[in-house]
Amino acid sequence: MAEQNTSPLSTIRTAVAGVGGYAGGELARLLLNHPRLAQSKPLFLGRVADDSSAGSVPLESLHPQLALGAGQTLPPVRAFDWKLVEDMGIEAVFLALPHETSREWAPQWLERGIKVIDLSGAWRLQHEVNRKVYKLTDENPALAASLQAEAVFGAPELHRKEIATARLVANPGCYSTSIILALYPLIQAGILDLDHGIISDSKSGISGAGKAATAKTHFMYGADNLSAYNVFGHRHTGELLEQLGITTAQIQFTPHLLPIPRGILSTIYARLGSSTDPAQIQQIYNAFYATSPMVRVHQTPALPQIQHIVKTNYCDIGFELAPDGKRLVIVSCLDNLLKGASGQAVQNLNIMCGWNEEEGLL
Amino acid sequence: MAEQNTSPLSTIRTAVAGVGGYAGGELARLLLNHPRLAQSKPLFLGRVADDSSAGSVPLESLHPQLALGAGQTLPPVRAFDWKLVEDMGIEAVFLALPHETSREWAPQWLERGIKVIDLSGAWRLQHEVNRKVYKLTDENPALAASLQAEAVFGAPELHRKEIATARLVANPGCYSTSIILALYPLIQAGILDLDHGIISDSKSGISGAGKAATAKTHFMYGADNLSAYNVFGHRHTGELLEQLGITTAQIQFTPHLLPIPRGILSTIYARLGSSTDPAQIQQIYNAFYATSPMVRVHQTPALPQIQHIVKTNYCDIGFELAPDGKRLVIVSCLDNLLKGASGQAVQNLNIMCGWNEEEGLL
Amino acid sequence: MAEQNTSPLSTIRTAVAGVGGYAGGELARLLLNHPRLAQSKPLFLGRVADDSSAGSVPLESLHPQLALGAGQTLPPVRAFDWKLVEDMGIEAVFLALPHETSREWAPQWLERGIKVIDLSGAWRLQHEVNRKVYKLTDENPALAASLQAEAVFGAPELHRKEIATARLVANPGCYSTSIILALYPLIQAGILDLDHGIISDSKSGISGAGKAATAKTHFMYGADNLSAYNVFGHRHTGELLEQLGITTAQIQFTPHLLPIPRGILSTIYARLGSSTDPAQIQQIYNAFYATSPMVRVHQTPALPQIQHIVKTNYCDIGFELAPDGKRLVIVSCLDNLLKGASGQAVQNLNIMCGWNEEEGLL
Amino acid sequence: MAEQNTSPLSTIRTAVAGVGGYAGGELARLLLNHPRLAQSKPLFLGRVADDSSAGSVPLESLHPQLALGAGQTLPPVRAFDWKLVEDMGIEAVFLALPHETSREWAPQWLERGIKVIDLSGAWRLQHEVNRKVYKLTDENPALAASLQAEAVFGAPELHRKEIATARLVANPGCYSTSIILALYPLIQAGILDLDHGIISDSKSGISGAGKAATAKTHFMYGADNLSAYNVFGHRHTGELLEQLGITTAQIQFTPHLLPIPRGILSTIYARLGSSTDPAQIQQIYNAFYATSPMVRVHQTPALPQIQHIVKTNYCDIGFELAPDGKRLVIVSCLDNLLKGASGQAVQNLNIMCGWNEEEGLL
Repeated sequence: MAEQNTSPLSTIRTAVAGVGGYAGGELARLLLNHPRLAQSKPLFLGRVADDSSAGSVPLESLHPQLALGAGQTLPPVRAFDWKLVEDMGIEAVFLALPHETSREWAPQWLERGIKVIDLSGAWRLQHEVNRKVYKLTDENPALAASLQAEAVFGAPELHRKEIATARLVANPGCYSTSIILALYPLIQAGILDLDHGIISDSKSGISGAGKAATAKTHFMYGADNLSAYNVFGHRHTGELLEQLGITTAQIQFTPHLLPIPRGILSTIYARLGSSTDPAQIQQIYNAFYATSPMVRVHQTPALPQIQHIVKTNYCDIGFELAPDGKRLVIVSCLDNLLKGASGQAVQNLNIMCGWNEEEGLL
Repeated sequence: MAEQNTSPLSTIRTAVAGVGGYAGGELARLLLNHPRLAQSKPLFLGRVADDSSAGSVPLESLHPQLALGAGQTLPPVRAFDWKLVEDMGIEAVFLALPHETSREWAPQWLERGIKVIDLSGAWRLQHEVNRKVYKLTDENPALAASLQAEAVFGAPELHRKEIATARLVANPGCYSTSIILALYPLIQAGILDLDHGIISDSKSGISGAGKAATAKTHFMYGADNLSAYNVFGHRHTGELLEQLGITTAQIQFTPHLLPIPRGILSTIYARLGSSTDPAQIQQIYNAFYATSPMVRVHQTPALPQIQHIVKTNYCDIGFELAPDGKRLVIVSCLDNLLKGASGQAVQNLNIMCGWNEEEGLL
Repeated sequence: MAEQNTSPLSTIRTAVAGVGGYAGGELARLLLNHPRLAQSKPLFLGRVADDSSAGSVPLESLHPQLALGAGQTLPPVRAFDWKLVEDMGIEAVFLALPHETSREWAPQWLERGIKVIDLSGAWRLQHEVNRKVYKLTDENPALAASLQAEAVFGAPELHRKEIATARLVANPGCYSTSIILALYPLIQAGILDLDHGIISDSKSGISGAGKAATAKTHFMYGADNLSAYNVFGHRHTGELLEQLGITTAQIQFTPHLLPIPRGILSTIYARLGSSTDPAQIQQIYNAFYATSPMVRVHQTPALPQIQHIVKTNYCDIGFELAPDGKRLVIVSCLDNLLKGASGQAVQNLNIMCGWNEEEGLL
Repeated sequence: MAEQNTSPLSTIRTAVAGVGGYAGGELARLLLNHPRLAQSKPLFLGRVADDSSAGSVPLESLHPQLALGAGQTLPPVRAFDWKLVEDMGIEAVFLALPHETSREWAPQWLERGIKVIDLSGAWRLQHEVNRKVYKLTDENPALAASLQAEAVFGAPELHRKEIATARLVANPGCYSTSIILALYPLIQAGILDLDHGIISDSKSGISGAGKAATAKTHFMYGADNLSAYNVFGHRHTGELLEQLGITTAQIQFTPHLLPIPRGILSTIYARLGSSTDPAQIQQIYNAFYATSPMVRVHQTPALPQIQHIVKTNYCDIGFELAPDGKRLVIVSCLDNLLKGASGQAVQNLNIMCGWNEEEGLL
C-alpha cells in the first residue's frame, strides 16, 4: 500500500558499502524509493577505478536498470573515504561485502557511532564452532568477541525488540530466513519431534551465487538444470542451530540451484510429537505472525510458490499435514535478494529508526 | 524516486474493469501503490461466479502475488453493477477488456460522465480501413464515429496536451509503443528516407499472448524457443501508420515470441535521407525526450536490453549509425505489461488529473 | 556408442497408439532411429480428423521436429482400424494413452496375440487399494484381474527376466522410476531404517504435465517459478509401495514443478539402520547396477544433475553420507520422457525381443 | 533414420583437437555415435594438467553427459603429442580451437598428410580485408597464402564437390550458415534487389558465446533478457560477403543474444527486383535443396522455429512474401553447435570420405 502518512518525515543519513553487487543494487533501489530515506540522499560506496578523475562512477553504470529519465540524476558511486562518510554525517551503514571485509570493517564504523547492518555472514553466529566455516580472523579478538556478543540476529519476526536498540545487526542468510521463519513458531510451540530429524530441501535462484563469473554461474551451467550442492554442512546451517535451538543431528539442510534468476523455496519435512490436526498448526502460525507485516501465512492446504514472492519482501509460508496427523510438510518462499538480503536489511533499519517495519517495502 | 510532496493529496475515484487478466493485475498493483489513488480505494470489477454469496471474490485469489500480510485486506473484486459504480462515485475507469467489449461499453461509461482509459485496440485507430482487423461492429454508428473522432491516442510523449483534457484515451498497443517512440522524433525531424522502407523486427515475452491457455501459451511451446508470427499484417500496424504518418509500403513490422515472461525489444532498421553523424541523431532524441520522464535515451553506441526495463514503466531507446552515416539501427525496449499497457494507462491518468506523469510509476 | 553388429538384423513390427502426445512423439523418434525397428516401418496411430480424405495426417504435422529433408518422407499417422493393424502384422504395440483407455483397450490387443507395452498407470499396480487413485472400471473384471496378475512392472533393472517373457508390460511412472532405482538396491541390502521414514523431494520439468493447455501448463505459470503439488498421495506412490515393499507411513514423496521442459531430479533422504561408511553404499550400488547399461552410478560425493540426463535414457544416481554414517542423501535424475517413459518402453521391447536392452537408446 | 547398410564399413581414423569446449564436446558425441567412425576409436586431444600421471583425463570429466553405464569406458582425453597422432595413424582432424591457434597449427597437420576440418574463423575468408577482424599473423606468409587459397569453405550445400577432394575445410560460422543458406539460392537465381539492402536480424542462444565465464555468459546477464550486440561489423560478415558475392553496403547483419542455451534464428528481410508470387520462390528453394538432406524447406507460409532444430543438424528455411510481391521475409533456423559447428563439420568429413553426408547426423 502507498504511504499515506503526511506528517513531517523524519529521516536518517545512510550509506551502502559494496553497492556494486546484487544485494548492493537492491539496497540502492530500495533506499532511493524509501519515503523517508530518499530525501536524505544515501551515500553509495563501491569500487572506483583509480584513474577516475571524479573519484566516482555513475550508479547506472553498475546497475543500468536503476537509471532515471532525462534531466534526473542518480547519486554517484564514490570511492571509500572516512572523511566523506564523516562530512556527510552518515548515521547508519549497510555492509554488502565479503564476510572477511565485514568482520574487519564493522568495528570501525561502530567506533564512529555509525550503526551497522551487515549483510554478510561475519556476525551472525555466536558460537565459534559454527563461525569456523567462514574462516574469520580478528585483529582485536577481545573487541570482536564483545561486538559479537552484542550483535543482534536481524530476523525481525524473532528479535524485533532487540533490533530496535541494536548498534550492530547481523542480517540473516537467505536460505536460513526461509527455514527459520517456517520452523520457529512450531518449535517454540513445542509440537515438533526434533529428535526424529527435520529436513529442509531448499532451492535457490542463481543470483544467490553472486555476481562473480564462474563455471557455476555460467548460463550454460544453470539453464534447464537443477543440481544439489553442499549436501552436508552448508554455511547457513549454523544460523539454523542457533536460532532454532537445535543440534546438527536434528536438521538436514540441502540446497539446490534452480534455473531462475531469483527466489528460494524450502520444502521442509518435520514430524509432530503427537498427532494433531491442521487447525492447530494453522493457529500457531497465524498467532505468531499476526503482527508481522512481511510474512504471509497461507491457509492450508494452499502452498506458496516462487513467482508470488519474486521482487517482494514477503516470506510466504504454507503447510500440509498428512492424514496421520504427524507428518508435516511446510513450504516457505522468499526472494533471496529482498527478504533474504536487502529487503530484510531495510526492514531492520526501519525498526532501528522506530518506523513501520514495512515502510518502503510494499 | 520516492514521492516527497507532503501537501494534501488530491485524488479521484477509479475503477478497473477486467481486473482478472495480466493487464488488470498490473493495474490493480499500480493503483494500490499510487500515492494519490490508493487512499480513494479503487473499485475492481471482474468475473464473479453467480453463486458467490458475497457478490465478490478476493483480489488475491486472482493475483496471489498481491496478497498482503496478516490483518491487512485487499479490496475485493466485484461483479459489475452500474449502481455500484454510481454509488462509489467513480470518476475514471480503466477498461482492460476484449476490444469488442470495450467498443460496446466505453460509450456507456462516458455517458455517465466517467472518463475512460481503454487498454484494448477498440478506439486506437481513426481510419476504418485500419480498424477492420478488429472486426468491430457498432450498435450506434454515429455515436461511435463521434467518440472515435474524440478519442486521443494515449502516447503521452506525443499527445500530452490532448490527453490532459481527453474524456476517452485509447491506450496504445505494446509493440506499437516501442516502435512509435523510437521512430517519431526522427520522422518528425524529417531525416529518414521513408520510401526506402523501415523494418521493425520486434520480440515479445509471452505475457503479450494473454492469460488464455492455448497451444501457443503452453510452456512447452514457448520455452527454449523463438518463433516469428503475423509476419505481415499484425494488428498493431495501423497504429504505426496513423501515428507515424507513413504508408503500409513504408513499414515492415514482424513480431516474434520470446521465451521469457515479459518485455519487448524492437530492433528497427531505417535509412537516412542523407548521410549524417551520430551526434545529430542523439541530439534529436535528447531534445525530443528532454521533458519525458518515462523515456530513457541511451548515449550511442550503448543499446538498451530487456532486463533493464522489466517491471518498470520506462521505454529505453538507443541507436547505432553505420560508418556510411546512412544505415541506422535503433533498439527500443519496454515492459509490455507496463509501458506497453497498464503503466502507460496510469501515466495517462496522471496527465488527465494534472499530476506529474510519472507519479506512482517509479 | 554406435551399433557395430553387422549380423543380419532381426526385427518385429511395432505400432504406437497415441502418437500425438509427448511420449508418443518420443516413441516415434526412437523407433524411426532404432537399428532393428526402423526397417520394419512402425505403424503410428493417432487422432485423424474425420474429413481427412487420406485417413491419415503427416507425422511432422504433430511433431515438426521429426521432419526429414527433401525427398524423404516419414510414415503417416493413421486413424485406428483393426484391419490395418492385422494387415500390417503388428506384433507389439506401445500404448501412449490415458489410463482408462489403456485399461479398456489392452486386452483387445493381447487377444490378437500382440504384445503390449503400456505407458499409462492402468496396469502398474497389483493391489486394488493402490489402483483406486486411477478410478478404473473393468467391463470384464475377471479378465482384467487375470491380466493384471500377469502384467509385469517394466523396470528392467528389477524385473529383466520377467519382462523377457511378458505379454503385457506396465511401463513405470517417471517419478517412480527415479525413486525406485535409487532405493531398491539399498532396501534389498537391508541397510535402511525404513520405519524412520524415507523422504523423496522430487522435481519435474513441465512436459510431465502433458500436452493439454491448462492454467498450470501456461508459460506464465511455469516460468521463473517452482511449486509443490500433490504433497500427499501423488498417484505414483502406489508403485513405490509395491516395488519397494514398504508402507505408506514409510515414504513421503512430494513432487514439484520445475521451470524447465524436461528432466526429473529426486533428492531422497533416508536413515541407515546402523552406521556405515560411504564405501559400503557405493559397493551396493555398483554391484546392483554392474550389468545395467542404462544406470550411471556416480562415485560419491559426486552427484548427478538434470542437464546431464536430458535427452538420454540414463538414470543417474549419486549419494552422500553424513559424517555420522547414518543420514543418507541420494540424488537420482532422469529424463521424464525417456527413462521415465518412452525410452524405458523401448528398453523393455528390446528385452522382450532378446536384444541388447540399450539398443537404439545410446 | 537408422543406418541400414550392412555392408562392411569403411572408416578412417579421426582426432579432435580442443575437445574441452562446447563444439569439442558435440564432436566427441557425434564421432562416438557415428556408424563408421566409432569403431576406429577417435583420438580426443585437450588440456591435461601436467601432473596427470596418466597423461590423460577422462572425457566424462569434461562432458559428464557423455558418460556411459557400468563397465563401459569412453576414450580418454590425451595431452597433445605428435608421436601419439602418428602412432594412431590419424587421417583427419577436427580443430576446435581459437582461430590464432588454428591458423598456426593447421599447416602442421596438413604437412603430415592429415586432412583438416577447422571450426574456427582462421581459414574461412579469402580476402585479407575480411580476415583482418581476426588479427591473424602468419609465420610463413607464403605457405599460409597458399593454404588459404586451397581452403574450401565448408558449406556442403554450396561446395559439395570441392569439399569432397579438399585437404583443408574451413567450417562456416554459425550465424553465417543460417544466413547464407537462406539467401544463396535467391541470389543465384538473380531475383533479389541487392542494392536495396538485405537485413538479417539474427538471434543466438548463449552457447554461441563459448565456455569462458564472463560477465556476458553469467546466468544473470542472459536469463529473461534479449540484447543486440556487434550491430555493425560482426566478424561473420566477411563470410556473407564472400559466399553471397555482395558488398558491405548490401547487407546489414545484427546479432542478438537469446536467453536459451542453443539455437539460432535469423529473420531476413529482402526486396525482390520485380514483383513475383510465392510459388516462384518456393520453387527456387525446393529445387536448390532437392538433394540436400540437411536442409528442410518449409512450405510457405509455414515458418521454422528454434525448438524444431535444437539438437539436430538441420537448417530449416521458410518464407513469406508480402501481398505486393516484393517484400520478402525469410526465417532460417539451426542449432549453432551442430549445423552451425560440429554437425556441419562431420557432414563435411562424410563428404570427404565419400559417404552419405547425413551419416551419423540423423
